[in-house]
Amino acid sequence: MSEPNRKSQESLQDRLEQVVLLLDRHQNRDPAEPGQQSRHLEELQRKLEELHPADIAYILESLPHDERLAVWQLVKSERDGEILLEVSDAVRETLIADMDNHEIIAAANTLDADELADLAPDLPRDVVRELMDTLDAQQRERLKSALSYDEDQVGAMMDFDMVTIRDDVTLEVVTRYLRRFEALPDHTDKLFVVDNEGLLKGVLPIKKLLVSSADELVADVMSDDPVFFSPLDAAGDAAQAFERYDLVSAPVVDSHGKLFGRLTIDEMVDYIREESEAEVLNAAGLREEEDIFASVWKSVRNRWAWLAINLCTALIASRVIGLFEASIEQLVALAALMPIVAGIGGNSGNQTITMIVRGIATGQVQAAHGRRLIRKETTVASINGLFWGVVLAGVAFLLYENAALSVVLLAAMLLNMLLASVMGVVIPLARLRLGGDPALGSSVLITAITDSGGFFIFLGLATIFLL
Amino acid sequence: MSEPNRKSQESLQDRLEQVVLLLDRHQNRDPAEPGQQSRHLEELQRKLEELHPADIAYILESLPHDERLAVWQLVKSERDGEILLEVSDAVRETLIADMDNHEIIAAANTLDADELADLAPDLPRDVVRELMDTLDAQQRERLKSALSYDEDQVGAMMDFDMVTIRDDVTLEVVTRYLRRFEALPDHTDKLFVVDNEGLLKGVLPIKKLLVSSADELVADVMSDDPVFFSPLDAAGDAAQAFERYDLVSAPVVDSHGKLFGRLTIDEMVDYIREESEAEVLNAAGLREEEDIFASVWKSVRNRWAWLAINLCTALIASRVIGLFEASIEQLVALAALMPIVAGIGGNSGNQTITMIVRGIATGQVQAAHGRRLIRKETTVASINGLFWGVVLAGVAFLLYENAALSVVLLAAMLLNMLLASVMGVVIPLARLRLGGDPALGSSVLITAITDSGGFFIFLGLATIFLL
Repeated sequence: MSEPNRKSQESLQDRLEQVVLLLDRHQNRDPAEPGQQSRHLEELQRKLEELHPADIAYILESLPHDERLAVWQLVKSERDGEILLEVSDAVRETLIADMDNHEIIAAANTLDADELADLAPDLPRDVVRELMDTLDAQQRERLKSALSYDEDQVGAMMDFDMVTIRDDVTLEVVTRYLRRFEALPDHTDKLFVVDNEGLLKGVLPIKKLLVSSADELVADVMSDDPVFFSPLDAAGDAAQAFERYDLVSAPVVDSHGKLFGRLTIDEMVDYIREESEAEVLNAAGLREEEDIFASVWKSVRNRWAWLAINLCTALIASRVIGLFEASIEQLVALAALMPIVAGIGGNSGNQTITMIVRGIATGQVQAAHGRRLIRKETTVASINGLFWGVVLAGVAFLLYENAALSVVLLAAMLLNMLLASVMGVVIPLARLRLGGDPALGSSVLITAITDSGGFFIFLGLATIFLL
Repeated sequence: MSEPNRKSQESLQDRLEQVVLLLDRHQNRDPAEPGQQSRHLEELQRKLEELHPADIAYILESLPHDERLAVWQLVKSERDGEILLEVSDAVRETLIADMDNHEIIAAANTLDADELADLAPDLPRDVVRELMDTLDAQQRERLKSALSYDEDQVGAMMDFDMVTIRDDVTLEVVTRYLRRFEALPDHTDKLFVVDNEGLLKGVLPIKKLLVSSADELVADVMSDDPVFFSPLDAAGDAAQAFERYDLVSAPVVDSHGKLFGRLTIDEMVDYIREESEAEVLNAAGLREEEDIFASVWKSVRNRWAWLAINLCTALIASRVIGLFEASIEQLVALAALMPIVAGIGGNSGNQTITMIVRGIATGQVQAAHGRRLIRKETTVASINGLFWGVVLAGVAFLLYENAALSVVLLAAMLLNMLLASVMGVVIPLARLRLGGDPALGSSVLITAITDSGGFFIFLGLATIFLL
């Protein structure tokens, strides 16, 4: 057992640096040493051959466009398929764009139907058609069915590597049957027990097979109420079930109870990771995964829409201020203080809406909790609003020596935070009731309300009481 | 195989509703039917007994404080331990606060050392001391060692449920040895091969054990360069390795190469989920997981600090505006337009910094990439800034019919977006170089800069060119 197998981030980093160094030496041809070039090239290729496909994927993702393609050319073509499965969508696109149809088909032919289904949306149409023709009937059927489900459904994530047995045989027979396999599929922690029609009757965990005596019947040892899924189930629900019940694999059955496929923990982990990344990116208005070395034009398109939406809300807030230009002309301190009112409302509202959206996602918050949550959030907002309002009113008094202005500032901060807390509960719950996604754009919406609302409340109060 | 095992979110929701209904009937004693009460109670207890501990945890988390404790009282005490492991930290606190020391110790006695270690930080000190005394020497040693690691280290997440074998025996012997177990530990997908001193020599995947012939030697079948971890490794790195190499379990060895513990995929999944939740919460300034039904006072404390930080940055921005009060008095349109400049800078900067922080987290972005990334981000910002600047300048011209003002607005938007893009690259890379966490508070920092910067640029340009 050698040190390189401490597969930590650092050792990966080392490998990346070695590859970059070799690539650099290979590309910066030193005319004094013509013989060296091919040596560097060979060393680089040997290095790449030793690496796990996931590690090569990592290296490809960490390299700028030109270096990435240079390394990609050096990878043995029979490994192309498994590496394409590991890279992110954005990087996969750049790699496929660099391959001709012949190479793509060669790479695809090394993959299973469920893996092909993951790749297919990124492939040129004529290549997919050609691929279909090279598959046998069962594989083609599987590929078609996997492609027929939404990206977020269990059907699109399952594989077909099930090991099935009958329930009327002894464990001895099962053990002998397994020994006939060249290798068992990854993540085989249970065998699926089916009847003659292929209906799922239960599962036999390998753990049980190993500790039970060989002459017992499968029917007596198997567990007959396993967790199972439908291909139409939402992937998120399946991921929560895997997490909750600590599953490694689970059967997928069709509406008639027939065994159809298999879901494994690695797909669920990838899903959880991708979902959480999407959440972070979406919160900043990045619509899809953007490869860090993507072209300028792609980045512009990716960020365009969000800026447009935010400009619209900013324009509305600006028009609210425009309504009170006469007041600001009379008391210019209003212009300096108004962003504080808007800002604290936005922060407070984002805290509330984040809590509620998260509670809805985990199922803890129901529409029926609305009143209780509004009561609680407004109480929290009142305490924070009063405290920070008094502090800020004090600071404003030191700056402007205008007691009435300070009182208006305090009142506006408090009112805007109350508005923020009510909307922070109402917006996601209303969306939940209307069947929408409570998370989508929640931050933009609450900020738009607390900006415009904050300006309106502060400038409105000031116009009534100060002028 | 019965329908209830479709373990989707909906069926969980059904169970929650059934429990709430029974609890309600039990608590709202109908004097007309005194006999009914105990029937409801019994039905509720039976219902709870049928449920998986993770499902009971889910129900407890979804109930407001009083109902939660009512259900908690009904749970059989021998299940308390496993349920406490499943609930979130915030809810665990409320449950433990409701138990006396005797109950806590009874619950803890049903757990393994590694599970106890997860619970220990939430238990009263004297209870932990008392618990230590009830453990045997090996368990006490394990508990102490697990407690000696950081929450984010592999040592705090590993368990001790390893099945170990020698390499000089045949698979036949291994199979007979396994059959002596009552049950194998969960997530046993490989056996750990050790020598006389307990040094890890390799792993024997169960998959291989099943397909290989019984008279082969372990040494010939085992894989001798398995992925392994040190108890000091960062949990995040281990989680990435589990994801990358599709692991189900992996050995943890000490610095001498001695087998020390075992890491399993379920712990890694929990870690990934918790990390992603923490990320979302932190982005909104929620410092720790806040139970949605937490007391008002706890919520106020949780949100306090963030509001204070944001008020400080808002106050600075306000003082920047204060510098230009004379200009605003002369041209009050400036007050209405300035939030647009600040807002678009903030959005644009947050997009850049989110990309970079994420790239650093996945290892794709190195400090050395700084110059290339600044070049790209400023180009993207220039294109977006020019386009949206022209649009907004047009709108402003329609509103104010002041061509010079529109040009200043365009220039200010462009400059603030350039500032945002440069700082969005520089801030996280500088933190990376200084050894800090690039994600921490990155959004506050960039927004503070683009707010104050935006006001300064716009009002400054206006003062120079318009007045």
